[in-house]
Amino acid sequence: MNDTIRIGIVGYGHLGRGVEIALQRAPDMRLVGLYTRRDPAQLQRTGEAVPAHRMEALADHADAIDVLILCGGSKSDLPEQGPALAARFNTVDSYDTHARIPQYFAAMDAAARDGGHTAIISVGWDPGLFSLHRLLGEAILPGGASYTFWGKGISQGHSDAVRRVPGVQAAVQYTLPSPAAIARVRAGERPQLTTREKHARECFVVLAPGADAQAVRQAIVTMPDYFADYDTTVHFISAGELAREHAAMSHGGQVLRSDTTGAGHAQVMEFSLRLESNPEFTASVLVAYARAAHRLQQRGERGAKTPFDIAPGLLSPRSAEELRAMLL
Amino acid sequence: MNDTIRIGIVGYGHLGRGVEIALQRAPDMRLVGLYTRRDPAQLQRTGEAVPAHRMEALADHADAIDVLILCGGSKSDLPEQGPALAARFNTVDSYDTHARIPQYFAAMDAAARDGGHTAIISVGWDPGLFSLHRLLGEAILPGGASYTFWGKGISQGHSDAVRRVPGVQAAVQYTLPSPAAIARVRAGERPQLTTREKHARECFVVLAPGADAQAVRQAIVTMPDYFADYDTTVHFISAGELAREHAAMSHGGQVLRSDTTGAGHAQVMEFSLRLESNPEFTASVLVAYARAAHRLQQRGERGAKTPFDIAPGLLSPRSAEELRAMLL
Repeated sequence: MNDTIRIGIVGYGHLGRGVEIALQRAPDMRLVGLYTRRDPAQLQRTGEAVPAHRMEALADHADAIDVLILCGGSKSDLPEQGPALAARFNTVDSYDTHARIPQYFAAMDAAARDGGHTAIISVGWDPGLFSLHRLLGEAILPGGASYTFWGKGISQGHSDAVRRVPGVQAAVQYTLPSPAAIARVRAGERPQLTTREKHARECFVVLAPGADAQAVRQAIVTMPDYFADYDTTVHFISAGELAREHAAMSHGGQVLRSDTTGAGHAQVMEFSLRLESNPEFTASVLVAYARAAHRLQQRGERGAKTPFDIAPGLLSPRSAEELRAMLL
Repeated sequence: MNDTIRIGIVGYGHLGRGVEIALQRAPDMRLVGLYTRRDPAQLQRTGEAVPAHRMEALADHADAIDVLILCGGSKSDLPEQGPALAARFNTVDSYDTHARIPQYFAAMDAAARDGGHTAIISVGWDPGLFSLHRLLGEAILPGGASYTFWGKGISQGHSDAVRRVPGVQAAVQYTLPSPAAIARVRAGERPQLTTREKHARECFVVLAPGADAQAVRQAIVTMPDYFADYDTTVHFISAGELAREHAAMSHGGQVLRSDTTGAGHAQVMEFSLRLESNPEFTASVLVAYARAAHRLQQRGERGAKTPFDIAPGLLSPRSAEELRAMLL
């Protein structure tokens, strides 16, 4: 653990910038380069001056990098980049398309094993820390029920769905958890909650010139899967107001597990996050798991892993002795 | 993972009974025996009928047990029993004397390595799940501050201290967290909190015949380490009321981590427990870690471990594939 861990960042959007910021607080790590599909000279840089390169430069940098943190999106970036890079580098990513995790894991596992590397996938808060708490809840209180609430925060997937409605020029969608539902679960009640009872949805929409507001509203609130099963509110606002009032990247939520043991004793576990910057927090989690990826590969572990496979001690720069003495 | 994990319980107080209850919900485990220093015929049994034995019987049962769950106390039971049993069995325990964990770890590690076994120590909620969250908080948000609040719940150590005061016939002590302090931390404020600002202490005391209430109160509230640094309330009650109103074993608390990232974005992580039965919850955690102890030993891992060393997936009866598909 004496050597500095050399990190490369692939993709320089909100998440990549968050990783650059988080690395400044990791005394055992050093950022050695940014890699982007854009023109490196055009990047809006934050943080310290490290070189930015085109993606193609990675081919020559394998010896200079211990772990690549992949900051691309799950829809098109990671399914393509992930396996190609895991064959040549240790990687950490925040792959978050829940339904496709088994396929993505298989592709990353094959690539990483072929190359003798470690690839930790689906790191962040959901999937990631929330997943860990769903697992802990079920393993410790197997007779109970689990509840995940998200928000208040912007959902990219739902915002994209609103933007695809004809007549919408721009939009964001907030997911709002139900305080009443959370209170019932916290009280140990173990309610059966419908989709509508758990979350509401609130849309802020900028109409295209000439669009019919009533038709747009109707198209949104009746949209299957995304909105039909929720109470959805639609507000029409100006482009200026959207830019001014809805650019924040705050988010959060909680995972609860509720059970009774013995003679009806209620037991409630809760993990919650209140985040003023969703991408900066996700980036902070990625950096901690990059440390684990490096250590696992040094121990000879190969292939894809998820947060379920990572002993918590591997996330800390402290030694096992220090952790036992100071934090246990 | 096909074979049933055979469990033995050592010590049959509240914690041992809680383990017996928790094992009824573990489909992959089977309780094979209870071991006690008392007369087995005199035990007040709950749960299923499995044989109860004197401790000495363990010498002949090594082949029948995969993991022993040690349910004795940290003050005198575990320091003696732990290393002796870890030499002959895989073990899990809830050793909770924070200041002596390094010594206990060393003794358990040596014994378990000699015997070719796995010993997981300091399992429960504090140490245990709360420790995990202190580690996660520090590893993910290294620039921030951590806060642990306990209660409302009875502290055995503080109750014992009150009972040692001359003139006290019986007593319990509740640790009360400060709602105002918790609210400040949740709001992302990162306050510097004194001992007095974090917790208050409340004592319910049955006086011995002829004792001077004022002198007893004074002796309690001025007691160094235990009470002098806190706001302490002392109530004098009857033995009947103590038995009737203060036998519940509810407890709980929370671990918070608060930091700012980037341009001053507040980020708050919180893990909290609301427990109507402290020993039954601790027992549920022990059972999940017993599963991990068995798996680690089957993989050839030897020696002492703490929750910091255990990958979360090892706690679940589900396969890694199932966990990725269902909970990630």
